[in-house]
Amino acid sequence: MTISDATPQQASIGVVGLAVMGSNLARNLARHGNTVAVFNRSPEKTRSLIEQHGGEGTFLPSERIEDFVASLERPRTAIVMVQAGAGTDAVIEQLAEHFEEGDIIVDGGNADFRDTIRRERDLARKGLNFVGTGISGGEEGALNGPSIMPGGSAQAYEKLGPILESIAAQAEGEPCVVHLGTDGAGHFVKMVHNGIEYADMQLIAEAYDLLRKVSGLEPPAIADVVEQWNEGDLESFLIEITAEVLRHTDAETGKPFVDVVLDAAGQKGTGTWTVQNALSLGIPVGGIAEAVFARAVSSLPGQRAAVTAAAGERPSPVAAPDGFADDVRAALYASKVVAYAQGFDLLVAGAKEFDWDLDLGAVAKIWRAGCIIRARFLDRIVEAYARDPQLPSLLADPYFADAVAKGAAAWRRVVSTAALSAVPAPGFSAALAYYDSLTSERLPAALIQGQRDFFGAHTYKRVDKDGIFHTLWSADRSEELREGGSGH
Amino acid sequence: MTISDATPQQASIGVVGLAVMGSNLARNLARHGNTVAVFNRSPEKTRSLIEQHGGEGTFLPSERIEDFVASLERPRTAIVMVQAGAGTDAVIEQLAEHFEEGDIIVDGGNADFRDTIRRERDLARKGLNFVGTGISGGEEGALNGPSIMPGGSAQAYEKLGPILESIAAQAEGEPCVVHLGTDGAGHFVKMVHNGIEYADMQLIAEAYDLLRKVSGLEPPAIADVVEQWNEGDLESFLIEITAEVLRHTDAETGKPFVDVVLDAAGQKGTGTWTVQNALSLGIPVGGIAEAVFARAVSSLPGQRAAVTAAAGERPSPVAAPDGFADDVRAALYASKVVAYAQGFDLLVAGAKEFDWDLDLGAVAKIWRAGCIIRARFLDRIVEAYARDPQLPSLLADPYFADAVAKGAAAWRRVVSTAALSAVPAPGFSAALAYYDSLTSERLPAALIQGQRDFFGAHTYKRVDKDGIFHTLWSADRSEELREGGSGH
Repeated sequence: MTISDATPQQASIGVVGLAVMGSNLARNLARHGNTVAVFNRSPEKTRSLIEQHGGEGTFLPSERIEDFVASLERPRTAIVMVQAGAGTDAVIEQLAEHFEEGDIIVDGGNADFRDTIRRERDLARKGLNFVGTGISGGEEGALNGPSIMPGGSAQAYEKLGPILESIAAQAEGEPCVVHLGTDGAGHFVKMVHNGIEYADMQLIAEAYDLLRKVSGLEPPAIADVVEQWNEGDLESFLIEITAEVLRHTDAETGKPFVDVVLDAAGQKGTGTWTVQNALSLGIPVGGIAEAVFARAVSSLPGQRAAVTAAAGERPSPVAAPDGFADDVRAALYASKVVAYAQGFDLLVAGAKEFDWDLDLGAVAKIWRAGCIIRARFLDRIVEAYARDPQLPSLLADPYFADAVAKGAAAWRRVVSTAALSAVPAPGFSAALAYYDSLTSERLPAALIQGQRDFFGAHTYKRVDKDGIFHTLWSADRSEELREGGSGH
Repeated sequence: MTISDATPQQASIGVVGLAVMGSNLARNLARHGNTVAVFNRSPEKTRSLIEQHGGEGTFLPSERIEDFVASLERPRTAIVMVQAGAGTDAVIEQLAEHFEEGDIIVDGGNADFRDTIRRERDLARKGLNFVGTGISGGEEGALNGPSIMPGGSAQAYEKLGPILESIAAQAEGEPCVVHLGTDGAGHFVKMVHNGIEYADMQLIAEAYDLLRKVSGLEPPAIADVVEQWNEGDLESFLIEITAEVLRHTDAETGKPFVDVVLDAAGQKGTGTWTVQNALSLGIPVGGIAEAVFARAVSSLPGQRAAVTAAAGERPSPVAAPDGFADDVRAALYASKVVAYAQGFDLLVAGAKEFDWDLDLGAVAKIWRAGCIIRARFLDRIVEAYARDPQLPSLLADPYFADAVAKGAAAWRRVVSTAALSAVPAPGFSAALAYYDSLTSERLPAALIQGQRDFFGAHTYKRVDKDGIFHTLWSADRSEELREGGSGH
């Protein structure tokens, strides 16, 4: 007798894949009154979940996929929580064999949104609903309330929505989940979330590095500064845990924890995806890209050692300007606005390219709790898109424009000080250069167009009339109209 | 009677696709004593080539693909010069139908190296040789001597090599062509070439912008400065044409040409590919990425206007420090070294990933003439790889390390001045941050590892012993050994 034979009851939702994330999500579902069917390829994980947490709610465990499917009420709805890639495809295929028209397969892993689009299309042909959903907040979020970013069809969301709402984190009484758009919309938004997370972490790391190397503060003193920041408009989960990490002392050596950790940052690839897709869509995301590159540089110990040895003596940091910690706070805030502006630009471009009706204010809303980048700041973004849903850039919103303008002088001092002090600040400086590029009346891109026309006859436009022009550089340097140019 | 019926002679090489690039390449081949079969889908282009340039050498024109194939000596060798993508596939398929074992199809377009790998594999199954080759130098280079970057099999190169050597640009008596490696090696190297070209152009544009906005020089005066630079270690084709473009006056308005050109830079995508592949391979290429992003920002007029309007007043440039033009020259040189260092790192990573036996010194050699990035500078790179073929970074070479160290103080002043003056210098600052990252004894990546371990149990390594560790952040904050850790 299998366990499920003993349970005539049916589950409103199932979870396949009971590693920590899946197991925690199943517990969260059960704790919120959902009857949860659970299945794992190796039954040990299923048994262990029931043994340790079976009392937290109503679970219907199965050891065979057929029993799992039979234990689900219709339309059957199962969340797949397995490793992204081939593993996900295998489980989906298995479920699709047993599921019937109208049933719903949900992928809660960190899938590439292009895979999600493909899977949705393939399953739709069989009459099945497929929902790719981002789930942020790590293991703790999965258990206690994640931020959930579902795509897929509106029809599937009718069944799925209330279940996800029951387990999502809450921000100001609202669940941090909303139907974002069709097919890959959810995983795209999750990808951008992660790209912003990379930028956020890099910027905080640069702020720490400057306070350490320029101001000469020790980690506990920096923890104090960062805690103060958490009282103001930088208040966020990442700032909060930064203070915790900086305050922590290594028990073995008595040194600050951050000094015993190897300074080589790992990455799992979603930051890379964000930048690659931004490049495909023509969206400048230097603030995010520099965060990805900074982790990559840190993980090249051989190259770091060789270049350092060849470089010889480095300059000492310049004296910290008065009020430098406040300057750094302003630089961090302004750079963070830039990173979010770039991320939201990418959301707009993705929605346009892939035909999603994405509500940017709603995205900001569901990031306010449960996820890694949760922050007070997101309320301001919600307000900005409420003022103007077609906002051309977060930096064009009066609140953010004003906040950044007020901090700009400090931001400039910080980038200048970092450059003169040989403290790398790739995120702060890329963000500032982006801001200054957007706000420059003229950019030297005109010279680049001239170069391109010179060596490759790539043509150019003029500031004073319509048309596409080419200068005969190797002849008499007269100008030819190549296209258009109706007038004025 | 078709034209080719009149010519019993056979051609050593054929060219398919007679738009400007293909036509110029065919003329270059004919001028160097090669008998050249030519074919174009619409025969008008073929006829026009023969009418206008038939006297420059021996052409065997055909109006049917069968005649073209019949006019080639064995092993038949044809260079395809059509638009990258579907067009290339169509022509290759057509040739493959008529070609026989041992014949050679060459793709001289700007193909994605992954397509080249795929095509080589498919054609090899039919016993055909396929060679993807980069050809740089634009229309002028195709006619008078390009830099040629062939991949493909060594066997194919036996026949093809001497032909390509006859038409390549020459640097110090050596033809700018070498067999770079199998399958996609040539197109990969060409892609990296183009990425470096983007960076080179962006850095020159930033130098111009700073001299204009901070030093207050007008374009002709900047042309003078740039011409002086061309006497020294910045000597290069791009510097040379920059002076030409800056000195040019618009005939219609009497204004500097650069001031009537719309400041929105175009791009054709190879810069994007470079950065996307660098991201996939984990190679930090911020100097190149910022150049791609800078073009993208420039081409967002709506966003630029909206953010500028919201931002309010911008700061005036600070006073130019004494000798600022020299500082800018030093910053340009150092940033350029970084861009090349990043590009060569990408070559190393690509060669490793795709199993190419790439000779980096040889790559630098064939870039010394014919291509857009030709520069005196490349002789220094040739020397660097002669000193140490396993050089871990160009910045670790004694010559470049010393040159950059000598210019570093100036470089820092330039980045600082740009930041304080609101003149965007994304390339200069990304390059400096990269240099400072590589040469920092400690990076704040340690804090990032702490954050990742805190919110996602991503673990970390320690500086003082082996193993993979995790701190129990939500419990008593003791440290767990998760993996390894044999000792010391």
